[in-house]
Amino acid sequence: MPDFTDALKPRYDGAATLQAERDGSPIDVDELAKHLLSRDGFLQRQDRVVRVLQKEKLFKKDQTLNLSRPERYHVGLARAKAVQRIMRREGWTTGEDYKMFEYLVDEVSPYHLHLTMFLTTVREQASEEQKKYWMPKILNWDIIGCYAQSELGHGSNVRGLETLAKWIPEKQEFEIHSPTLTASKWWNGSMGRTATHAIVVAQLLLPKKGSKSEYESHGPQPFIVQIRDSKTHQPFEGIVVGDIGPKYGYASMDNGYMLFDHYRVPKSAMLSRYAEVSDETGAISRKGHPAVVYGSLTYVRGQIIMHARLVLARAVTVAVRYTAVRRQFRDRDSKNEAEDEMKVLDYPTVQIRILPLLATTFALHYTGEMMYDLYSKSREAIEKDNFGPLAELHSASSGLKSLCTMLAADGIETCRRAMGGHGFGGGSGLVGVNADYLSKPTVEGDNWMITQQVAAHLIKKMASCVSNPNAPPKDPTDTLFQFYLKNHAHHIPQNVVRADQISDQAIVEAFQWRAADLSYRAYQARVVDKKPWTKLMIQLHSLSRAYSEHILVTTFYNYFQTTSTNLSSPTPAVLRTCFRLYALFTLDTFSSSFTLTNSVAAESIPVLQDAILNLMVELRPHAVKLVDAWSIPDFLLQSALGRYDGRVYEELYDMAHRRNPLNKVTFNPDWRCEEIVLGSEDRGEAVLAKL
Amino acid sequence: MPDFTDALKPRYDGAATLQAERDGSPIDVDELAKHLLSRDGFLQRQDRVVRVLQKEKLFKKDQTLNLSRPERYHVGLARAKAVQRIMRREGWTTGEDYKMFEYLVDEVSPYHLHLTMFLTTVREQASEEQKKYWMPKILNWDIIGCYAQSELGHGSNVRGLETLAKWIPEKQEFEIHSPTLTASKWWNGSMGRTATHAIVVAQLLLPKKGSKSEYESHGPQPFIVQIRDSKTHQPFEGIVVGDIGPKYGYASMDNGYMLFDHYRVPKSAMLSRYAEVSDETGAISRKGHPAVVYGSLTYVRGQIIMHARLVLARAVTVAVRYTAVRRQFRDRDSKNEAEDEMKVLDYPTVQIRILPLLATTFALHYTGEMMYDLYSKSREAIEKDNFGPLAELHSASSGLKSLCTMLAADGIETCRRAMGGHGFGGGSGLVGVNADYLSKPTVEGDNWMITQQVAAHLIKKMASCVSNPNAPPKDPTDTLFQFYLKNHAHHIPQNVVRADQISDQAIVEAFQWRAADLSYRAYQARVVDKKPWTKLMIQLHSLSRAYSEHILVTTFYNYFQTTSTNLSSPTPAVLRTCFRLYALFTLDTFSSSFTLTNSVAAESIPVLQDAILNLMVELRPHAVKLVDAWSIPDFLLQSALGRYDGRVYEELYDMAHRRNPLNKVTFNPDWRCEEIVLGSEDRGEAVLAKL
Repeated sequence: MPDFTDALKPRYDGAATLQAERDGSPIDVDELAKHLLSRDGFLQRQDRVVRVLQKEKLFKKDQTLNLSRPERYHVGLARAKAVQRIMRREGWTTGEDYKMFEYLVDEVSPYHLHLTMFLTTVREQASEEQKKYWMPKILNWDIIGCYAQSELGHGSNVRGLETLAKWIPEKQEFEIHSPTLTASKWWNGSMGRTATHAIVVAQLLLPKKGSKSEYESHGPQPFIVQIRDSKTHQPFEGIVVGDIGPKYGYASMDNGYMLFDHYRVPKSAMLSRYAEVSDETGAISRKGHPAVVYGSLTYVRGQIIMHARLVLARAVTVAVRYTAVRRQFRDRDSKNEAEDEMKVLDYPTVQIRILPLLATTFALHYTGEMMYDLYSKSREAIEKDNFGPLAELHSASSGLKSLCTMLAADGIETCRRAMGGHGFGGGSGLVGVNADYLSKPTVEGDNWMITQQVAAHLIKKMASCVSNPNAPPKDPTDTLFQFYLKNHAHHIPQNVVRADQISDQAIVEAFQWRAADLSYRAYQARVVDKKPWTKLMIQLHSLSRAYSEHILVTTFYNYFQTTSTNLSSPTPAVLRTCFRLYALFTLDTFSSSFTLTNSVAAESIPVLQDAILNLMVELRPHAVKLVDAWSIPDFLLQSALGRYDGRVYEELYDMAHRRNPLNKVTFNPDWRCEEIVLGSEDRGEAVLAKL
Repeated sequence: MPDFTDALKPRYDGAATLQAERDGSPIDVDELAKHLLSRDGFLQRQDRVVRVLQKEKLFKKDQTLNLSRPERYHVGLARAKAVQRIMRREGWTTGEDYKMFEYLVDEVSPYHLHLTMFLTTVREQASEEQKKYWMPKILNWDIIGCYAQSELGHGSNVRGLETLAKWIPEKQEFEIHSPTLTASKWWNGSMGRTATHAIVVAQLLLPKKGSKSEYESHGPQPFIVQIRDSKTHQPFEGIVVGDIGPKYGYASMDNGYMLFDHYRVPKSAMLSRYAEVSDETGAISRKGHPAVVYGSLTYVRGQIIMHARLVLARAVTVAVRYTAVRRQFRDRDSKNEAEDEMKVLDYPTVQIRILPLLATTFALHYTGEMMYDLYSKSREAIEKDNFGPLAELHSASSGLKSLCTMLAADGIETCRRAMGGHGFGGGSGLVGVNADYLSKPTVEGDNWMITQQVAAHLIKKMASCVSNPNAPPKDPTDTLFQFYLKNHAHHIPQNVVRADQISDQAIVEAFQWRAADLSYRAYQARVVDKKPWTKLMIQLHSLSRAYSEHILVTTFYNYFQTTSTNLSSPTPAVLRTCFRLYALFTLDTFSSSFTLTNSVAAESIPVLQDAILNLMVELRPHAVKLVDAWSIPDFLLQSALGRYDGRVYEELYDMAHRRNPLNKVTFNPDWRCEEIVLGSEDRGEAVLAKL
């Protein structure tokens, strides 16, 4: 319905503002975008999939925040099914296309676990015979699978799982059973309402040697189990399964619970590439090296880092574009009353929250690239049964997973707050991604938990370097530790940061020295002084963070030194500014850890603030073009504040005035009257009945 | 429907665990609760209102996370109306009762603005005649009011508001008009669907002296305007008004937008206690001192701090109880395979996230108390037209608002992550409060913005102390600054923190010295070196934080020294541990700021970690009883993880298995089939139609 507001325009023209920002920086966005996003044809694939999705009504997103959680699952399932049909229609078959769909649809599909943990586990842990039976059904989506490992009582501690799988020799069957309430499977995605099959991880109970009635546990083992009837989709007798209910995020996903009552499965249910139970004796025989599983865990973590950079890039894109358009207050020192208000992004108090995060997206990027490369290289070694590189890779990946997901999760919220009032609104486009992403610091290894593994690995390495200081180094960490051990008696010269006078190389060395020194302190405390592990945990967490930061900084430095030289001016210089901003901002945040370890002189700390301010001044003119290079399509952003064309206020108003279903109802605010809705058939009773 | 899971129990008994925790600490919880929560009869009122609310079906909360945003408003309005009826039925009439309702119902009422900003503005800014007309209607809830100040384009910068109110002398009317899209009122609570009336803040345009056609602005002025018809509840012609749509939180609230098309209101619409337009000349006459308005802003901020402590206490309650019940992993150094797994709260990596926040709840409390006291005292001065104390109080309240809401908002998320996987689930009970509370760092003065006012005030004070070092001090800040100026040439002896050897007094002095030193640096940079304000903004933000932290630490110290002496042992000692933990944790977090300002010697920093670990060991046995003292009722917590009786897993399971509506629907996961729902009348079409 037309009204007088149709003709109104915002006071400042956002579209012209962003255009001016773009005109003001000579960065070649297309070139930089290709530099960042060419792996596996990401950019072209994104374009192709966006074009298809935009045409499908089912994938319209602008009512997402108005749907209830049960409705979100309904829609999620409808979309998951539609994606299958679209892929076949378009003739797309690769996993990369599928992943791109899920990324752009921007919600976890109820089918998600089928192609991730379910497929991967069967592929990696099933025997050849089992694979021959299951893989065609999986790849054809005749069954929908999930992965039931975590339980109500145990997540991180996999050895503590309570679900039992007891071998019944007479029947040649396993009996799967939940002896306690906390044995209930819990959190397992796709299991609540969707899956027909599950990988169930259970404690394998086998008869004690020489005993008929006594059993002993052989640790957690995966079983493949059909859980629901193919026709009715009802769970089988002896299985209780359902959705665990609403969560912070993941509204479209049916995270599930499941319990078993002495439920029998055939012997063939146990995935038996690495372990088999003998028919006769019920004894277990192990074969092969299950460490290969850590390989795929490492790959998953590489993906998590690459995903973290895109999620952070998305929040930063919204924040940079909006704060470039938003104006508030004139300069406090300005005498000109007629002057335009300042762009919010020109305030250092806004810059200090957004621009270091913009720099962080690139830091994450180069480390993600490095992880993929390293993974490919170590795959070859693993294929040759050389598991040496795995421990190092696994350790690095754990620390980085913890650091990078925390940077992204905190970064989203920092961007949101930097956008003031509108940052709290649905127009930010960050409500969903924020809620969903908050799971990442916990899943795939709790961010505090897994740092303990990193520290344990570093202590072991340091101990070996101490006892064997001249052994040929096996990896860069060995090289670093050996260098440290040769020099730490006479402290290396401290790096004095004076404004912009510190060299890039000196920054890298400060991060390296800190990582090595903290590793040495941890080694000293644990191995030499034999302190209890528990007492050291906080220190070890900080060690992991410092070690991961040294990887980010070192890798960023190495990559922009080599790969960015192909880019046209001024991009290499701007990337160097990003490197320095990320590094010095981190150095400033943890300055006491740098001074404590003699990595940086105490007198350098006070000048960091000015150095950081100057770097932000350098970066500021390129901010809009740098986020453009991350190429987050408007279809994914779904953000009035962050849309490419800068029409922030027009879109906010349109969302409120023309697309908000609540505005179609006239309510009765009079407290004397019980009806909520005025002059309508439905007086609101249906809503209240849901309470 | 009964099934085999009915008989199952969790592996570890949560109820027995919490009981043992309570038995293990001799703290008198009732006594401490009274100490904390007696102001205005809080505890008894809470008990009384909970008892009533628990009996009302409309206030059942366990389906809240399953409602859509439009449904949340429906329910919110129904509850707002029911509260009015209940209050009359029970004979409760005070604003305190009403506030308690809203606190316990735990969602912002669509009526919220009526009794807060609407009522307050009329009371404080209307003339006696206007009050006589409006107050009975307001107090009788015959009209529902809101407060329309913020606009699409301007929030913090009130002087930049674009809505105009032009005086039309011929008609003796004002013409309210929105000349641009960004002039749209925006964010204003209760306005979207509920309110009948609004306080509209608009730029007052009066004819230029001696001119008929030219107008000039006299700044923002409040007008009271009826916006919707009393019968049909439709907006009047010339007004466009609606709800802005879904947000991060505040689902039950109809934050609105509103535009005017040359809309005429009578002269009496302008609230005229402090300013009046003369009928004849159209000239403005100002009267009285509107600074009194800052008084109520200060009061609102005192409330924000008191609320922050309860919100943080709620998150900490959930986190402490759950991590005391949750067990994961045996001690890494333990050799005993049969040993129980460790309580998660016994890990220092969990303690370091939760226990300093537990200490922070008390730090916030005592400062909130101090603010209320100070406010009462300065009210008296204001009544006597002495506005001297207001600037100091307003400045302190701004800095504290910024710091305390940030501590609470970040603290909720820290607690949530410390709870691992279940912390992401709806059973945490924190989903709603988290989303709602994220607005607090922005509303009532953006947390970064308002710190600039604090810094400006401190610079002014320091300048006056410098030029007049022996003037009688007007307040504690003067005293501190004068002490600093006398001693800063020869640095005061640095405090060396060695394990537990630093005195409480020395800790307080370190915080005071830092605040004074940073104030002096800001004075030096701005007044002496005349640096541009913009360049100093980050530094000034840090100054505000340091200054506010010194208030928290000083106040905590003063209060527990005096008031806690009435408490029975060991409560005073435990509160002292909280004081030291909060202070040393803060000192450690910002150690470089303390060393930079010579408030603490650099060699003290490395021993802080051990001191903090020891304080956490001291506090740990009392953690459950300390959160008990905050007396957050289960009705408010709505948390499986945080319930008083410790039956964590039983409740999580019950929520999932018996109270999750999604589990009542059987879905069809087969992608070949378009229907989402299996064997039902409704195949999911209704849901999809909403897209």
